[in-house]
Amino acid sequence: MSAVLAGRVAAQRGAADRALVLLGTGVVGGAFLDLLRTPAASRLRLVGVANSRLQRTAAEGLAAHDLRARLRVDGEARDDAALLAALDASGVATKVIVDATASADLAARHPQWLARGHHVVTANKALAGGDLAGWRALQAALAHGARYGDAATVGAGLPVLATLRRLRDCGDRLLALEGVFSGSLSWLFNRYDGRRPFSALLREARARGYTEPDPRADLSGADVARKLLILARAGGFALDAGDVEVQSLVPASLRALDTDAFLACAEALDAPLAARHAEAQARGHALRFLARLDAHGRAQVGLAEVPAQHPAARLDGTDNQFILTTTRYRAQPLVIQGPGAGPEVTAQALLGDVLALR
Amino acid sequence: MSAVLAGRVAAQRGAADRALVLLGTGVVGGAFLDLLRTPAASRLRLVGVANSRLQRTAAEGLAAHDLRARLRVDGEARDDAALLAALDASGVATKVIVDATASADLAARHPQWLARGHHVVTANKALAGGDLAGWRALQAALAHGARYGDAATVGAGLPVLATLRRLRDCGDRLLALEGVFSGSLSWLFNRYDGRRPFSALLREARARGYTEPDPRADLSGADVARKLLILARAGGFALDAGDVEVQSLVPASLRALDTDAFLACAEALDAPLAARHAEAQARGHALRFLARLDAHGRAQVGLAEVPAQHPAARLDGTDNQFILTTTRYRAQPLVIQGPGAGPEVTAQALLGDVLALR
Ligand SMILES: NC(=O)c1ccc[n+]([C@@H]2O[C@H](COP(=O)([O-])OP(=O)(O)OC[C@H]3O[C@@H](n4cnc5c(N)ncnc54)[C@H](OP(=O)(O)O)[C@@H]3O)[C@@H](O)[C@H]2O)c1
Ligand SMILES: NC(=O)c1ccc[n+]([C@@H]2O[C@H](COP(=O)([O-])OP(=O)(O)OC[C@H]3O[C@@H](n4cnc5c(N)ncnc54)[C@H](OP(=O)(O)O)[C@@H]3O)[C@@H](O)[C@H]2O)c1
Repeated sequence: MSAVLAGRVAAQRGAADRALVLLGTGVVGGAFLDLLRTPAASRLRLVGVANSRLQRTAAEGLAAHDLRARLRVDGEARDDAALLAALDASGVATKVIVDATASADLAARHPQWLARGHHVVTANKALAGGDLAGWRALQAALAHGARYGDAATVGAGLPVLATLRRLRDCGDRLLALEGVFSGSLSWLFNRYDGRRPFSALLREARARGYTEPDPRADLSGADVARKLLILARAGGFALDAGDVEVQSLVPASLRALDTDAFLACAEALDAPLAARHAEAQARGHALRFLARLDAHGRAQVGLAEVPAQHPAARLDGTDNQFILTTTRYRAQPLVIQGPGAGPEVTAQALLGDVLALR
Repeated sequence: MSAVLAGRVAAQRGAADRALVLLGTGVVGGAFLDLLRTPAASRLRLVGVANSRLQRTAAEGLAAHDLRARLRVDGEARDDAALLAALDASGVATKVIVDATASADLAARHPQWLARGHHVVTANKALAGGDLAGWRALQAALAHGARYGDAATVGAGLPVLATLRRLRDCGDRLLALEGVFSGSLSWLFNRYDGRRPFSALLREARARGYTEPDPRADLSGADVARKLLILARAGGFALDAGDVEVQSLVPASLRALDTDAFLACAEALDAPLAARHAEAQARGHALRFLARLDAHGRAQVGLAEVPAQHPAARLDGTDNQFILTTTRYRAQPLVIQGPGAGPEVTAQALLGDVLALR
């Protein structure tokens, strides 16, 4: 370790009042490592980092600089126990595991970590947005006192989950929740005007990096459904994954193909969407890919027509939008809108949750 | 005290982990008293309540029921010392003063109370939105560890101040803040289309209870300027009250009149506004009463033209709107919108701040 680096680590160590392990060094994890090098993170000591195959630990603190390269060059084999041991050996009271992966296996371990007294801060939706048994295990684990930071799981940190929880703490009740929870689907339907074929727009969205490499991951509505589940549960509706009615945009005939084959025949999407668009337009309505929850806990995800005055009719770009109607926000809803994806805001949501721990 | 009431007070007392004094029993204070009778407030013990002339105290807890009437019937003379003594005598560790007045005198005492270790939760904007010396005294008092709950001062609890602070804690920087911070001015300009005279619309807004009894309190922009000051300071710009450029809608000739005389000649507003509206319309723009802050700390309040794609062009009803552009929310801003006034949401904002104390 160079003298400069050693100095930096020592400085970091002096002020640290929370020790972290970071799981995942992809798009979000990488952006989080960048944030760890800023003054806002001076209270944090990174004691472990892992990707799917390799990890590094140092109870006295890893320098966040160049960590991804160093992981490749001299990482150790993946082993949760060593990561937890580094947290224990840190001597710092507040211990946090940051999950920036999409791994369902890791998510299933969140309850164990919480029960051990470690806080968990996550961009990974697999537990809170998965089946009800997992969510219940999470609630049970939270009774031990450790906290679960999930701001990054919905809207990439837009203040919707915190707002919903705060309203409920005050005795307010969620009557309806509605919105556009996917940046790629927002962009596609904000742009789609029935003239340019939908498949052409889809290729453009993919080229711009708005969709997953296989756009069916977006078009299926599965990710939106997970976010709706997380919100519904935070709003007091203990729904199971199967309780969300999801209308996929991908016709059954295109579901089994590999990615290239799907992309080659994406034109099959065009005619049905053009017809729906024409119908909506005739009524003066816009088409939007909406998530909806009503006061009875009925949850739906799919394409819907909205009138021109509806907040979703006025969305721009890849913005997400969350429309909350409650007992006390009834005549007019509370609306939160803005970028709901992107490495920097997502990483910032993780950092915000870590800093909010006490 | 009836047996039922005594039981209720005892139950309240058993679970209480924070003791409160409420200043102000008007529109907002009354709604707050209503919330104190809901299960969400079961952890709170009200030990004192006051209006401008009278007060009641009881270290063992006042029943929130009928308190306003009881204050009139057998209130004691107004005396801060007795209220503080009731907090001290409560034996509850977390002590909170809730300010639901508009009194500048009371606001000036917030720093003393904080320095004594009492938390202050306020709908009163006079300190944080007043002159810079007062705001600095507040910051100095906060160094003692007690907390200042100000969610009700801007947007009646819409989550804008908390979001701004969270972003700044993460190292994000406010580059621009813009929006419509007044429910009455929002309604007036969302409705005004140049056909019906502005003064007629103003009378309707007053009849609906959207404006203050003297609508010049709204039209002057002074209240919007106070909210902009609070936000700017929370965003890192230590502006003084005089640093906000305020363009009042009230012509100089109408400023000295009494309320009735002003209302009788409100038609004087019509021609100049009709002309501005026509100009804006010719450019395809909308007129909005905006508050704006730029990256250099330049703060302005007044009527502005916005293009049709601007979020403020699409407002409804009396909604407030807050548009935050930061280093990390740059390509598209973060927008929070909804009812920014009203007794119930304002009282809920106070309750939320009290419950968030630890
Ligand atoms: N991207 C966004 O804008 C955004 C917004 C909100 C939420 N999210 C969520 O954030 C999470 C991460 O997204 P991403 O875009 O960063 O994905 P990504 O680029 O694919 O990165 C995923 C990372 O997780 C690692 N990983 C997988 N299994 C692991 C394991 N068992 N232990 C440790 N590391 C493991 C991967 O390791 P390898 O490097 O070895 O493959 C990779 O580094 C996802 O849950 C996503 O839904 C993303
Ligand atoms: N109304 C809203 O929607 C809203 C929204 C956000 C914020 N706010 C803010 O909330 C505050 C209260 O508004 P409001 O609409 O409730 O006003 P309000 O109806 O006029 O009530 C003000 C109350 O303050 C009391 N008061 C004045 N001086 C006092 C003193 N020295 N000690 C104790 N009590 C005193 C008054 O006593 P008397 O009864 O003896 O006159 C009255 O009960 C204001 O700062 C306002 O800007 C209001």
